[in-house]
Amino acid sequence: MTTIIRGGTVVNADRAFRADVLCYGDKIVAVGEQLDAPPNATVIDASGQYVMPGGIDTHTHMQLPFMGTVTADDFFTGTAAGLAGGTTTIMDFVIPNPQQSLLEAYHMWRGWAAKSAGDYTFHVAVTWWSDKVHEEMGVLVRDHGVNSFKHFMAYKNAIMADDETLVRSFTRALELGAIPTVHAENGELVFQLQQDLLRKGITGPSAHPLSRPPEVEAEAANRAIAIANVLGTPVYIVHVSCAESLDAIARARAKGQRVYGEALAGHLVIDDSVYQSADLEFARGHVMSPPFRSKHHQAALWQGLRGGNLHTTATDHCTFCAEQKAAGQDDFTKIPNGCGGVEDRMSVVWDAGVNSGMLTPSEFVRVTSTNAAQIFNMYPRKGLVAVGADADLVVWDPEGRRTISASTQFAKGGFNVFEGRTVKGIPSHTLHAGNLVFARGELRAVEGAGRHVDRPAFTQVHA
Amino acid sequence: MTTIIRGGTVVNADRAFRADVLCYGDKIVAVGEQLDAPPNATVIDASGQYVMPGGIDTHTHMQLPFMGTVTADDFFTGTAAGLAGGTTTIMDFVIPNPQQSLLEAYHMWRGWAAKSAGDYTFHVAVTWWSDKVHEEMGVLVRDHGVNSFKHFMAYKNAIMADDETLVRSFTRALELGAIPTVHAENGELVFQLQQDLLRKGITGPSAHPLSRPPEVEAEAANRAIAIANVLGTPVYIVHVSCAESLDAIARARAKGQRVYGEALAGHLVIDDSVYQSADLEFARGHVMSPPFRSKHHQAALWQGLRGGNLHTTATDHCTFCAEQKAAGQDDFTKIPNGCGGVEDRMSVVWDAGVNSGMLTPSEFVRVTSTNAAQIFNMYPRKGLVAVGADADLVVWDPEGRRTISASTQFAKGGFNVFEGRTVKGIPSHTLHAGNLVFARGELRAVEGAGRHVDRPAFTQVHA
Amino acid sequence: MTTIIRGGTVVNADRAFRADVLCYGDKIVAVGEQLDAPPNATVIDASGQYVMPGGIDTHTHMQLPFMGTVTADDFFTGTAAGLAGGTTTIMDFVIPNPQQSLLEAYHMWRGWAAKSAGDYTFHVAVTWWSDKVHEEMGVLVRDHGVNSFKHFMAYKNAIMADDETLVRSFTRALELGAIPTVHAENGELVFQLQQDLLRKGITGPSAHPLSRPPEVEAEAANRAIAIANVLGTPVYIVHVSCAESLDAIARARAKGQRVYGEALAGHLVIDDSVYQSADLEFARGHVMSPPFRSKHHQAALWQGLRGGNLHTTATDHCTFCAEQKAAGQDDFTKIPNGCGGVEDRMSVVWDAGVNSGMLTPSEFVRVTSTNAAQIFNMYPRKGLVAVGADADLVVWDPEGRRTISASTQFAKGGFNVFEGRTVKGIPSHTLHAGNLVFARGELRAVEGAGRHVDRPAFTQVHA
Amino acid sequence: MTTIIRGGTVVNADRAFRADVLCYGDKIVAVGEQLDAPPNATVIDASGQYVMPGGIDTHTHMQLPFMGTVTADDFFTGTAAGLAGGTTTIMDFVIPNPQQSLLEAYHMWRGWAAKSAGDYTFHVAVTWWSDKVHEEMGVLVRDHGVNSFKHFMAYKNAIMADDETLVRSFTRALELGAIPTVHAENGELVFQLQQDLLRKGITGPSAHPLSRPPEVEAEAANRAIAIANVLGTPVYIVHVSCAESLDAIARARAKGQRVYGEALAGHLVIDDSVYQSADLEFARGHVMSPPFRSKHHQAALWQGLRGGNLHTTATDHCTFCAEQKAAGQDDFTKIPNGCGGVEDRMSVVWDAGVNSGMLTPSEFVRVTSTNAAQIFNMYPRKGLVAVGADADLVVWDPEGRRTISASTQFAKGGFNVFEGRTVKGIPSHTLHAGNLVFARGELRAVEGAGRHVDRPAFTQVHA
Repeated sequence: MTTIIRGGTVVNADRAFRADVLCYGDKIVAVGEQLDAPPNATVIDASGQYVMPGGIDTHTHMQLPFMGTVTADDFFTGTAAGLAGGTTTIMDFVIPNPQQSLLEAYHMWRGWAAKSAGDYTFHVAVTWWSDKVHEEMGVLVRDHGVNSFKHFMAYKNAIMADDETLVRSFTRALELGAIPTVHAENGELVFQLQQDLLRKGITGPSAHPLSRPPEVEAEAANRAIAIANVLGTPVYIVHVSCAESLDAIARARAKGQRVYGEALAGHLVIDDSVYQSADLEFARGHVMSPPFRSKHHQAALWQGLRGGNLHTTATDHCTFCAEQKAAGQDDFTKIPNGCGGVEDRMSVVWDAGVNSGMLTPSEFVRVTSTNAAQIFNMYPRKGLVAVGADADLVVWDPEGRRTISASTQFAKGGFNVFEGRTVKGIPSHTLHAGNLVFARGELRAVEGAGRHVDRPAFTQVHA
Repeated sequence: MTTIIRGGTVVNADRAFRADVLCYGDKIVAVGEQLDAPPNATVIDASGQYVMPGGIDTHTHMQLPFMGTVTADDFFTGTAAGLAGGTTTIMDFVIPNPQQSLLEAYHMWRGWAAKSAGDYTFHVAVTWWSDKVHEEMGVLVRDHGVNSFKHFMAYKNAIMADDETLVRSFTRALELGAIPTVHAENGELVFQLQQDLLRKGITGPSAHPLSRPPEVEAEAANRAIAIANVLGTPVYIVHVSCAESLDAIARARAKGQRVYGEALAGHLVIDDSVYQSADLEFARGHVMSPPFRSKHHQAALWQGLRGGNLHTTATDHCTFCAEQKAAGQDDFTKIPNGCGGVEDRMSVVWDAGVNSGMLTPSEFVRVTSTNAAQIFNMYPRKGLVAVGADADLVVWDPEGRRTISASTQFAKGGFNVFEGRTVKGIPSHTLHAGNLVFARGELRAVEGAGRHVDRPAFTQVHA
Repeated sequence: MTTIIRGGTVVNADRAFRADVLCYGDKIVAVGEQLDAPPNATVIDASGQYVMPGGIDTHTHMQLPFMGTVTADDFFTGTAAGLAGGTTTIMDFVIPNPQQSLLEAYHMWRGWAAKSAGDYTFHVAVTWWSDKVHEEMGVLVRDHGVNSFKHFMAYKNAIMADDETLVRSFTRALELGAIPTVHAENGELVFQLQQDLLRKGITGPSAHPLSRPPEVEAEAANRAIAIANVLGTPVYIVHVSCAESLDAIARARAKGQRVYGEALAGHLVIDDSVYQSADLEFARGHVMSPPFRSKHHQAALWQGLRGGNLHTTATDHCTFCAEQKAAGQDDFTKIPNGCGGVEDRMSVVWDAGVNSGMLTPSEFVRVTSTNAAQIFNMYPRKGLVAVGADADLVVWDPEGRRTISASTQFAKGGFNVFEGRTVKGIPSHTLHAGNLVFARGELRAVEGAGRHVDRPAFTQVHA
Repeated sequence: MTTIIRGGTVVNADRAFRADVLCYGDKIVAVGEQLDAPPNATVIDASGQYVMPGGIDTHTHMQLPFMGTVTADDFFTGTAAGLAGGTTTIMDFVIPNPQQSLLEAYHMWRGWAAKSAGDYTFHVAVTWWSDKVHEEMGVLVRDHGVNSFKHFMAYKNAIMADDETLVRSFTRALELGAIPTVHAENGELVFQLQQDLLRKGITGPSAHPLSRPPEVEAEAANRAIAIANVLGTPVYIVHVSCAESLDAIARARAKGQRVYGEALAGHLVIDDSVYQSADLEFARGHVMSPPFRSKHHQAALWQGLRGGNLHTTATDHCTFCAEQKAAGQDDFTKIPNGCGGVEDRMSVVWDAGVNSGMLTPSEFVRVTSTNAAQIFNMYPRKGLVAVGADADLVVWDPEGRRTISASTQFAKGGFNVFEGRTVKGIPSHTLHAGNLVFARGELRAVEGAGRHVDRPAFTQVHA
């Protein structure tokens, strides 16, 4: 199968330039002006458009088991929605049950993911410490293409990793050439604040942000960074939502430490007024952790992306329907945490970031794709429009507009935190592995067409 | 008993002025120029000298039980050494055994302290959490004049407080009107670094600072401050030794948070080259935690005192003799941690701080006495030369010199980290409770003359 | 004349305590519980109230000549309004005409001030450099009680001091034991921005804040601090209005530099939405420099006061009536800069600062009086309730309420930036030099009763 | 002419990979594994070596007229020395005489540079402001490939730009799509400190660093950044030498501002002890501005390069012989400022940066070539090993060693600040415009072979 994208402006992280892009099989085989193409090639007209590497969403939870049910999007619907939005690879999470074998959990998740329409790969969570965890981390890195491990510093009495687990797991990751990632919130403080609020009878969704103020996140970010610093390992902070966490990252980076930060599309544009809504279903629909923040944090996150202290954008896509969310109607701590976005991230970041002049198109590519590919060692297979790279491409129409709505989205769950937002800048076409999977609003996702992306250890980036 | 100090310059935290000081009983009864005094009054000639509030050492461990033995200085010799150096009040620590009643431990320590020659008061350590701890904290505050609780973030597998204990104890202190204090070092990291060093065969005292780098301290300081911030309680960081911890304090204070920092005389003037000594007994003699640091940290601590981000000076006086220190000759982690200094603090801080122009005399008083009295609610009884205050005074000879040496000191332990240092600026006389207890080199300390200082809750300072 | 204030709580910068205060002549002669007083003494009942040092407004412009007219308040009406608000001393400014003798200008201003009802003293502006300026600075310090010099970094083509003037004047101040103060705004940038706005036809008062963004202020503050640092002189930044300037101060202070910052009552509570008013007269009434800022700057200023990076509160009282302000109706750069407040500062700071729990009563005294007295060497004559101090006192009713309005104020100008604000916490009585000049709403100010306050050089504070 | 570099590891800013590189004419025509090459091609064996973009030295002064003489290196010897060190492009400076036409000066410099052996391009200095300057800046950008203008904030009474010039020139650069660059030192403070030192009789070279402390640099850096911020233009700070300047850059970048910083090879590895040498000729040989700094600044600069707050490395190559330097033997202010290094930069940065693990090879390429090419819009023609790029390449032998010495260098001047330093990591071959100009120690530089590099305005990087 041959496809040629003609007349567009290729945008890579280092520059933008006029070129055609020729794809054969699942690879890019030529990039240049006025390329020849075989007569049978599919031709995509990209004039007036950008041709960019397919997006990488570094943070999703498809088909996440939760209290006897699962999130609304499975690996097929979730990755398909991603393709519709220009995202061709997701990084999901294997979260073992307590004391479950990491390998067993990994294989379980791999099985679930087999139906994916887009490419996928997994961070594996380390939530306690044991000799077996130590051993299985090695197997995962050596034999299964895993090079990142996730640590939750929140969720006391569940998956919260204590300092000993952090120290040991970071140490193990270092020797394996893998990178530790952290959900940075001080779980002990969250727990205490939750109990205080419930004790005072404050049980609705407006209590959610009160139980997780920015300081709670900043403390944990600073702690994870300090541990990484002392041990000499790089570290990646997921879903940085506030100025204070970002400051911790900026301080460390200014000292030359290898710290990376991820921003969620939602945190970049939505503020905490949503929790004050009288429509409690609406408010609950926005419950995720860390919560949405007041407006000045949004400004800070954009500055972080622009200034190089934040590196990736993601969604933490984790969709629950209203019925699931209602489990917490009498107790905000029981509301399943999670929102969607995998379908909207690229457009939201472009519209709010590029159209505003905050980011250049190359910086957009960097924070939606290239940096992720580099940090997690998928580069230059992913994250780059160049010969030899995967033919995961998005043809981006900077003049196209779309009004985001749960009623028109491909993703499941019946809710969208960006509801009603009109974005300018949308994918006109998405290619995944050389196949045209989305074209001018038509989704052609194929169940099972997605591939697992093996990620080797010891990336060059932070060697 | 009446004493008049004539012709000196009274130095308080707010200003210095010429005045005589008349003491009757244990109180100051007049401060003014050309005071009348009864004919039987003892007259001290302070011309050319300063008259200042007696020093408060906020951090000592006299008679500390340790591995079946105790520190070299008991409450008599330790407080007597303090009087010789111009320090009239010490703040020591009650450290309960695991699961021991806080009250029982408190009474035990009070019994030991009855022999003190100078005044004393106790911080009480909270090293685990239980309902009984919660209850006994209340009793201590309401009935026993305790308004500060100590938390060790280091010393894993011993007295380390986990985050839950910190959160609960800080919360309890807040409602009681007491202030939490913390020894800020991440115990998990220290433990891991110690094990790494021992595993590599690095067992001598030079390993000690390697196991406790500045980042380990800064992380814990930042965490304690964040917890205090979220809970809305003031917090006091003991023995701040490095620029990075100080930065955490400065950041919080710049945001208006009530954070206080303590510097040790040793950390202000001694650097980490001592651990490289070929004389291992000498090196072990300097083992304390946090360890001495490289020179740029000393400069930072002085800036902190001058700029108001550090508030008190102390010693962590905790003397072990060479035989005791030798317990760690094959394993640096077994060297009893501690150094002396209660006798030398005032002179060391004056010499390095005031003679250099870094601090004014009033600032010296502030950081050696007044701030401690205010933060721990002993003010204006302590920390001020004024009518009604305790007649705890030091007559300070700015031209006097002394060469510090273990061979001439009053303190026990046979070692002095300031050995050989000649200081300019020494006490010529010390009054305690109106009694002349030190006069031109002669120590007249009386066993049992010291009083316990009750410290009420809810100090005005950080209300 | 003898007055006794009975039953109140005396508040000084270091503590609050129950005491009566006895005044005789212009001095405080006794402070203590249950004081005796002569039968003829005036008795003020202060039960349930605070007794505090009279306020010092460090920044006023009474009777300022401007474009052939003068500000609405002269030294009598301005100081009288101060007394009504609990402020007993103002620090005004001598601003020589170009090339005018500093001494001549000084004497001119002293003459104008002779009618003052409250105490006064002068900062003298240095706006160019010459040998004569050098010489006259010496005369002012040695013979006229001046220990502070003002430098405008803004107002290009008028009174802006260039770097050479700053460097030379700071150097001269240092050798004289005086302190340089600065209005920190980069005048070149302001000028350029003003021209740009006018060129674009943006001529109304809403252009005013656009021409003076926070960065313009922060640059100048940083520059003045750097110059002071290199030369080794203390420096005082007037009317710090934004987070960015405050950061420059906090950075320097954390390094131990002697930098002081002043906040205006207006900047603490008023935000920049006033410039958007459709009522252009209202908007022009708020034109001062630096301008009012967005809300997050107010929060920062309060944190600065609480955390010790800001030291004094003032008003920049400089009242123009609507007709005068109308001079800039077609060109915002021609609107006379200035607002009032000398009558309201104490209540505004108490209401927004103490009632909110941001400041303790002692901290209130510190930032409204004591720090100013210490920095400018009027202490302990001013800024302290103690025997020997001036009987400048305010009896403060924490339950009293007042709604601020131009229609009821004593100050002139017919406008009030705090219009309509109800404050809780007002003076019930003000004593100036032992005289009861304000009592329960009745102003008894006496023209000419104010005294000039000589301020000696070489204050102890930053020696 | 065809050359193939076989068997090496190509290093670009984004990654390193095994590939041959084929050059034809002055371009790279193929990059890939196992490339075919015509039989007549010159073959360079790069096995075990890196193949990197030729270095760009962003800061040199060849043939600089000075006091009736000129620097020791002219454009031929200087660029030739660069080629020997792996640097294929220099960015030099046109510095007009007072009131000289910028265009006239530009053409004069272009004439001098015609003899260059390597490529060259010019920053043009703006040292005063006038309508003609405004106009000629436009001509230079539109017609002469200039996209950067230099501003000296030091050198009072000579080329120092005042704030008005900075504001106007930055504004003009913005509208032209050019980038302002600044030499950041507060010239007024330098002048005052110089005069103070001379007045005290301190006239030797050890006075040089005393007259230019870090605060003097940091102030100017902060000011330039603030001006750029207010005007909305990017800004590039040349020769950042100290932690304090770097902090100013880091603060601005963390806020998302487009600020770039340059580090000199000398500042990265040489400390200020050189000025204390009893050998005054040696000490004078190190006189440059900013001066070398104490060691902790070197650590900070490396952190800046690693953390992304510094972007380029340069030399400020400006060589004077001992006789020229002796002009200041009685007055340090008369010592011609300048040191060499164009020949050594690449090896010094590699040895101290890559061998230490501070930088990855890709980061080395970024800071020695790619970032410069991007910021100054020469990318991808320069700064990248890719098809279509200039065949300016260095084959880098990571095991090769060289001991730097004036006695063996190609550069003139008879002095080398790196004298005696043995570096590991040297060029084995340098290609310039497809020609092999340096091979295993043999320099084949050709006078006049260098080309001027036109740099278009409106680079994508900071658009």
